[in-house]
Amino acid sequence: MTREPLPSDTPPMRAGTPWDDDKLHEECGIFGVYGSTDAAALTALGMHALQHRGQEACGLVSYDGERFYQHRANGLVGDSFGDGGVIKGLLGYTAVGHVRYSTTGETVLRNVQPLYADFHFGGLALAHNGNLTNALTLRRDLVERGSLFQSTTDTEVLQHLIATSRRSKLLDRFIDALRQIEGAYSLIALSRRKLIGARDPLGVRPLCLGRLQDAWILASETCALDIIGARFERNLEPGEIVIIDADGVHSYQPFPPRPKRFCVFEYIYFARPDSIVEDRNVYEIRKRIGAELAHENGIEADVVVPVPDSGVPAAIGYAAAAGLPFELGLIRSHYVGRTFIEPRDEIRHLGVRMKHNANRTQLAGKRVVLIDDSIVRGTTSKKIVSLVRQGGAREVHMRISSPPTQHSCFYGIDTPERDKLLAARFDIEGMRDYIGADSLAFVSPEGLYRALGFEGRNAAQPQMCDACFTGDYPTTLTDRETRDRPAQLSLLSETG
Amino acid sequence: MTREPLPSDTPPMRAGTPWDDDKLHEECGIFGVYGSTDAAALTALGMHALQHRGQEACGLVSYDGERFYQHRANGLVGDSFGDGGVIKGLLGYTAVGHVRYSTTGETVLRNVQPLYADFHFGGLALAHNGNLTNALTLRRDLVERGSLFQSTTDTEVLQHLIATSRRSKLLDRFIDALRQIEGAYSLIALSRRKLIGARDPLGVRPLCLGRLQDAWILASETCALDIIGARFERNLEPGEIVIIDADGVHSYQPFPPRPKRFCVFEYIYFARPDSIVEDRNVYEIRKRIGAELAHENGIEADVVVPVPDSGVPAAIGYAAAAGLPFELGLIRSHYVGRTFIEPRDEIRHLGVRMKHNANRTQLAGKRVVLIDDSIVRGTTSKKIVSLVRQGGAREVHMRISSPPTQHSCFYGIDTPERDKLLAARFDIEGMRDYIGADSLAFVSPEGLYRALGFEGRNAAQPQMCDACFTGDYPTTLTDRETRDRPAQLSLLSETG
Amino acid sequence: MTREPLPSDTPPMRAGTPWDDDKLHEECGIFGVYGSTDAAALTALGMHALQHRGQEACGLVSYDGERFYQHRANGLVGDSFGDGGVIKGLLGYTAVGHVRYSTTGETVLRNVQPLYADFHFGGLALAHNGNLTNALTLRRDLVERGSLFQSTTDTEVLQHLIATSRRSKLLDRFIDALRQIEGAYSLIALSRRKLIGARDPLGVRPLCLGRLQDAWILASETCALDIIGARFERNLEPGEIVIIDADGVHSYQPFPPRPKRFCVFEYIYFARPDSIVEDRNVYEIRKRIGAELAHENGIEADVVVPVPDSGVPAAIGYAAAAGLPFELGLIRSHYVGRTFIEPRDEIRHLGVRMKHNANRTQLAGKRVVLIDDSIVRGTTSKKIVSLVRQGGAREVHMRISSPPTQHSCFYGIDTPERDKLLAARFDIEGMRDYIGADSLAFVSPEGLYRALGFEGRNAAQPQMCDACFTGDYPTTLTDRETRDRPAQLSLLSETG
Amino acid sequence: MTREPLPSDTPPMRAGTPWDDDKLHEECGIFGVYGSTDAAALTALGMHALQHRGQEACGLVSYDGERFYQHRANGLVGDSFGDGGVIKGLLGYTAVGHVRYSTTGETVLRNVQPLYADFHFGGLALAHNGNLTNALTLRRDLVERGSLFQSTTDTEVLQHLIATSRRSKLLDRFIDALRQIEGAYSLIALSRRKLIGARDPLGVRPLCLGRLQDAWILASETCALDIIGARFERNLEPGEIVIIDADGVHSYQPFPPRPKRFCVFEYIYFARPDSIVEDRNVYEIRKRIGAELAHENGIEADVVVPVPDSGVPAAIGYAAAAGLPFELGLIRSHYVGRTFIEPRDEIRHLGVRMKHNANRTQLAGKRVVLIDDSIVRGTTSKKIVSLVRQGGAREVHMRISSPPTQHSCFYGIDTPERDKLLAARFDIEGMRDYIGADSLAFVSPEGLYRALGFEGRNAAQPQMCDACFTGDYPTTLTDRETRDRPAQLSLLSETG
Repeated sequence: MTREPLPSDTPPMRAGTPWDDDKLHEECGIFGVYGSTDAAALTALGMHALQHRGQEACGLVSYDGERFYQHRANGLVGDSFGDGGVIKGLLGYTAVGHVRYSTTGETVLRNVQPLYADFHFGGLALAHNGNLTNALTLRRDLVERGSLFQSTTDTEVLQHLIATSRRSKLLDRFIDALRQIEGAYSLIALSRRKLIGARDPLGVRPLCLGRLQDAWILASETCALDIIGARFERNLEPGEIVIIDADGVHSYQPFPPRPKRFCVFEYIYFARPDSIVEDRNVYEIRKRIGAELAHENGIEADVVVPVPDSGVPAAIGYAAAAGLPFELGLIRSHYVGRTFIEPRDEIRHLGVRMKHNANRTQLAGKRVVLIDDSIVRGTTSKKIVSLVRQGGAREVHMRISSPPTQHSCFYGIDTPERDKLLAARFDIEGMRDYIGADSLAFVSPEGLYRALGFEGRNAAQPQMCDACFTGDYPTTLTDRETRDRPAQLSLLSETG
Repeated sequence: MTREPLPSDTPPMRAGTPWDDDKLHEECGIFGVYGSTDAAALTALGMHALQHRGQEACGLVSYDGERFYQHRANGLVGDSFGDGGVIKGLLGYTAVGHVRYSTTGETVLRNVQPLYADFHFGGLALAHNGNLTNALTLRRDLVERGSLFQSTTDTEVLQHLIATSRRSKLLDRFIDALRQIEGAYSLIALSRRKLIGARDPLGVRPLCLGRLQDAWILASETCALDIIGARFERNLEPGEIVIIDADGVHSYQPFPPRPKRFCVFEYIYFARPDSIVEDRNVYEIRKRIGAELAHENGIEADVVVPVPDSGVPAAIGYAAAAGLPFELGLIRSHYVGRTFIEPRDEIRHLGVRMKHNANRTQLAGKRVVLIDDSIVRGTTSKKIVSLVRQGGAREVHMRISSPPTQHSCFYGIDTPERDKLLAARFDIEGMRDYIGADSLAFVSPEGLYRALGFEGRNAAQPQMCDACFTGDYPTTLTDRETRDRPAQLSLLSETG
Repeated sequence: MTREPLPSDTPPMRAGTPWDDDKLHEECGIFGVYGSTDAAALTALGMHALQHRGQEACGLVSYDGERFYQHRANGLVGDSFGDGGVIKGLLGYTAVGHVRYSTTGETVLRNVQPLYADFHFGGLALAHNGNLTNALTLRRDLVERGSLFQSTTDTEVLQHLIATSRRSKLLDRFIDALRQIEGAYSLIALSRRKLIGARDPLGVRPLCLGRLQDAWILASETCALDIIGARFERNLEPGEIVIIDADGVHSYQPFPPRPKRFCVFEYIYFARPDSIVEDRNVYEIRKRIGAELAHENGIEADVVVPVPDSGVPAAIGYAAAAGLPFELGLIRSHYVGRTFIEPRDEIRHLGVRMKHNANRTQLAGKRVVLIDDSIVRGTTSKKIVSLVRQGGAREVHMRISSPPTQHSCFYGIDTPERDKLLAARFDIEGMRDYIGADSLAFVSPEGLYRALGFEGRNAAQPQMCDACFTGDYPTTLTDRETRDRPAQLSLLSETG
Repeated sequence: MTREPLPSDTPPMRAGTPWDDDKLHEECGIFGVYGSTDAAALTALGMHALQHRGQEACGLVSYDGERFYQHRANGLVGDSFGDGGVIKGLLGYTAVGHVRYSTTGETVLRNVQPLYADFHFGGLALAHNGNLTNALTLRRDLVERGSLFQSTTDTEVLQHLIATSRRSKLLDRFIDALRQIEGAYSLIALSRRKLIGARDPLGVRPLCLGRLQDAWILASETCALDIIGARFERNLEPGEIVIIDADGVHSYQPFPPRPKRFCVFEYIYFARPDSIVEDRNVYEIRKRIGAELAHENGIEADVVVPVPDSGVPAAIGYAAAAGLPFELGLIRSHYVGRTFIEPRDEIRHLGVRMKHNANRTQLAGKRVVLIDDSIVRGTTSKKIVSLVRQGGAREVHMRISSPPTQHSCFYGIDTPERDKLLAARFDIEGMRDYIGADSLAFVSPEGLYRALGFEGRNAAQPQMCDACFTGDYPTTLTDRETRDRPAQLSLLSETG
């Protein structure tokens, strides 16, 4: 994981494309292989399949029995690891990889994972998906005792906890360190003899185990198993540690069992539709949420149009449930990259359609149900609604396949400050007015849980982590509550 | 335009991604602006909207009343023109841009358009979409008379014809040159005082005129008008030359009128679905072809699955016509770039799924109608069918929204040699066997023409250019028939 | 050669280092090999040895019996051709290379030589050292007749003259073209079967022939023979054309003989000291000029200090002749590159010593004779004198190993406009005052010619070209005298 | 400083140019500024002036009262810091810079200095010239106690010693750390309020203090003061620590005084000739060594020729003392960069003269005294002698301005393994035979000390560190004598 949620008035700048900025972002994907002569190539492919979980930077560490090999870069996996020469230099039978989304200010290479360090017992590389909620407090204590940090990631806290642990065996040091941390984490660690996977006691972030011939795989999502033709074995349990070595897979459960609280947003937006996450097909769940939306908030209309690409499955579900035609009324360009020309204001105000264009013939004169997965700041929704109207739509009814996003996430999702969230600023009518739709509705928490196969949300002990909708955080938030935490993780500003 | 279809035994290598290689490729998109202070920025946006017509290279020439400014680069428009600094350096009120697909061997920068040259009458930049069928013959003659070529494009033939014309006015020289060439061309030329657009007498390639405030726009497709908020004015007529200058738009028709033969493949695959090409919405035509397919070749099935993204509209049309559910049974990664790691053979043979993955939950146990737009070599179709079967499909029925592609195109489409085309090697049953489907059917030429709004194909005088399906070439193919044409355009092999 | 001396009020910007800017610059070096399996590697080495003749750009064309291979780049030979991969791609037994100095505005790659073009008779690559004085006039005529130029070099005029010649044999076309041009040129051309060398009828620029095992070499200077261990054979005669092919070396003298006018500045500054140019060792001539300086303008002093590195040989000669110690009183940094930080004005005014530093211990309290090869604008001399004074010198006596530079060169040397030349603005006393020296003297033309082994300068028919000192130009200057020449060679401004 | 002298059989690969490889290399230069609005620009200029002390990498850290700014890069200062944008980003009134020579295997950016870390007390950047002789031992202990190293430099040991010190004030922590280290070090540290300079108790490496207006400067050599026009104040004393803050310069002498042992090789080769090092002008000392050489080992000859550039001052001294002419009989190319083409063996064996060329006219038929500063492996000397002979010299008498280099340096100089040193393999006659000279002589240690102003070498307590000649190491060499030191500093091999 990468970034502590710093209390700040200035919203962090996004390096993404203008419209994607108005999404929540999963911050990481992780992947590991034990026991293949193609360990680095398989890991790069796995990272590529997890690219939707982080596009800013990526890294890979392999081990060949003698040395560890590391390559880290900003940008996409295909751009950084596509070159055969890079893969050839990453020797060994075991490897761990990481893809990362992060905010601009922190994209220096020293923060790119897997983090590697030489310990007394040998080298260890660490890849983390999630976020620790007491990292600042722990870091301050470690620095006071003489630890020098090389990054501003919370993941490095774990490395120093392992380094300064007084236990002698690596597993004991690892457990010792995990005992001290709070928050969400799925971890893959690579030592000289072991590949280690771990999930936090609530199981907030996904992690699964797969098999490819003689090799074992750890991956955030099953789509990363599919890309290399690996077989899904099982999900790791919340709080479970697995150690994979020459003798096979060993499982440990060092923490007292707690009810699972898996992140519901993985189903709504983060995970790839073809993944099977915690035993549910993501595409199928999204279709069912669409159907729930149609049942809860159906409206007289002519056509159901998704905001591509993330709104497509829910729109298919909605259209089928509502008996309406599903049409691609908005076309998305897949060539939109990171940056683009900024024409002068007068041109920009004409409404430049860099990413989406209205498919007029499908919209003109019609009552349109527009399906999107979420509304964050609302800026994109406003533009999309306007675009659909310019395309000739007679009515625009916005339907959202998640409840209103009202709270920040502290478990590894990049969320704007609360006061930037549209749902924290307005009620539904205010939101509708802001985005300019004729009507606006969100799926209810009950509908969402029904789509997931529950009878409804258990308010006393919610079955999922849905804190971004409800504010019901399943862990303590030590850093957030601590008054004397450091204002800055590092005084260093690195360039070039 | 870029490359003469050279007779060669070795298929040209493709720089594209493995699976896209098995598509026909439109070779170019063109865009021009007259009369805006943002000419270069608007042109770059237009080129971006036309990116699907060519991803290999792009170029832009602007004119500010004193000098011409040129920037050319390999790669995507966003990567080469996204930087504000580049746009700022391209001064002027008028500009012309070009995006280009080309084969590996010819991607040197000197071939990237618009081509610019200084003539006796001043500078002229030329952007071409299409292909000349007597370029080799003309080039040989010009070189014999002392012309020195700087590129291997057929477009440069036009420049030398203009330079050596004995007429004095630019328009007369231009017409003089066009009279000598055969083949398909939509052209945009930029001189010191004029922006010129031209279409060949058959109107094989598209070109339309738009308006943005006081500025005039020329563009290959309407989606390039939409991106900048410009208004569609009209398509250029076959054989029409328009000259845009300070006095407005002037139209010329120097050639005897001939029946239009617009390229049918623009509707099937090349054009963007949201474009309105020759007065028809591309997405709508594709849906109708899907419906024709269902009517002509319907089959008992459980689900209709598109090969994404190009098969989606036809699949929606098929599903609606057949009363079957439309599902995303294949998920496509949008992060696939140009190149990627090649794992060792044993891994590759596991079937690495770089670009598509089966969405098993939607396929398992089902009878699947799989919709794609065309079969070229058949290699991709074979892999896709296999992928769908591995996803658990009980039956796979392949339906193609075009007739069998049996002939090479000489009008600006990059086609493999005839003996590489699956439809030239096998009958339908042989093709079905090759790709491994349970059944295979193509839309009939009649169905295709019906979807386009005709009663059927007029065999005596076909309404479109459909030579790739029928071998019915609407022009002479001088170079192809000439025995003594040069074997090589240039003896030069340029590096770095 | 590269650039026509355009009449312009704004002095062209230099890309060089601040102090080197105040030198005249040789504009090119050329090198060719016929008959070695290492043709490209040998050529790159030869170009490297000629690097002092041009540091802005370099290019190489080779031929392997089937194709020509070209690589051109901005920057130093070692940076562009040091990579083994580049050399490996330049196949063949024969090659020609070029290094080039040029002004900023024209450093686009299309101007980098050797220029290559495909002619009716096959390919031809051309490398030129020198400058044509009627290029603009010829170019205008060629463009009027339909030739399209791809560069702004005068060398391309030659190509078009060859292309449009009505003679049939290459040699005849070549002679036909040379007959039409005026000015200075040493040329190497590479065709499919021949390597051709040529010098203008006055022999202004150097060109010599060498031998390495079975291979023949053409090179601007002998130091380029030495680097590869080749044997010097002879200099080409003024007006001579040599054709090297499978049958050996053939010599032609198509022009009426004229008295030789070799460039005297080659001895003063351009050529490398270890070269033997027109049968004289450059270092030895420079020492002798130093001795002449001491004889003509000796002065009481304690030490002789060169401005490094170009002043060293003359200073050694002066010191020996004057019986004074020679000391490195100025130390030059060899790490000075193209650009460097510009500190704020207040710091810059402290006198930043990027390139030279005073070696105080050798200067303090002493009467210093400071030796430099020339004064162009005088800005550097002023700084150097000031630096020597700050180093503690009691007196500074500047002695220059050339006569005052009062006139522009039109034969391939980059000279500032006349009104920027210090010697055109002031008399000797005014120059001394400007640079701040206690005394200033230049070697006399007579002394210079004596150092070269003549009895003195033959004013009626000078033995060398010394137009930069005397204004006595040995050819007509057609372009300079033509009123209606084009103001600009091209309307194009190319970026990226 | 950068690299521990690892015991290894394979000589480390050099990234330098072929002939420079056969030199000893100073490993670092350091520079710091306190109190200038141009701190980063001045530091970059100072680093540029110290470029001869390290060309592989360079780094700079500045502090603006709030944050530290760091830029590190491989390559030359001018290439990495020449861009104004880089300097503008390095804000603040105080800065520290470092240039570094290092071996290929270790040139990863994380090893480039200044090293920065965030401590409990704030940030600290550290730049080191020298080498610690107990770094491995200390590192092993620190890692055992839980410190995680990010680099393989010995400098980082210092950081962890400071971090884990139990003292509270920074100065006390700093002294605490210095007490534990052995070896040679000149250090500049930058904290939030202080610029700190320190020299080891023997004063092996240079460090001096200068003044520029209100700012204080610390620099390895005076030439780095000269470049910015700063005034030399004084050298730091051996064992001295100076702290520069808002109140001025404070001096501390925490260690018991010991006799100074300044590195004699700084005078022979490392320092720039214009520097005044430990109160002696380097150029003057070199001339005097040349004179001593002439007195000790004079020989009948015609000319004295230096191996440029390092042999020049000694050759001037020799020539003056011997009454022989000094001539540039070898010409050096200043365009030789990092890498260059490798022609095939047959060509290479012709003796490619990439870097030096014989100036035949000055050598032919002459008895040549050839002056160089040292012989390391002897490979270059062998080539140079051969080159001079090929230039026609009748006799070649090699004279070396240092005693034979027989021992490795452990104090910051990159020396080959002992068994690669020519002087450790052969006696003088054997060396002469190996390099192919007619005679060979080295200056005697006594002569060397006389040139430095001593009466001779005090064998009981040598006045300088001359261990590379004598094996008389002035400190313990703990790492070298420790059997159980780690074989490898890190298991990590980083790419990209």
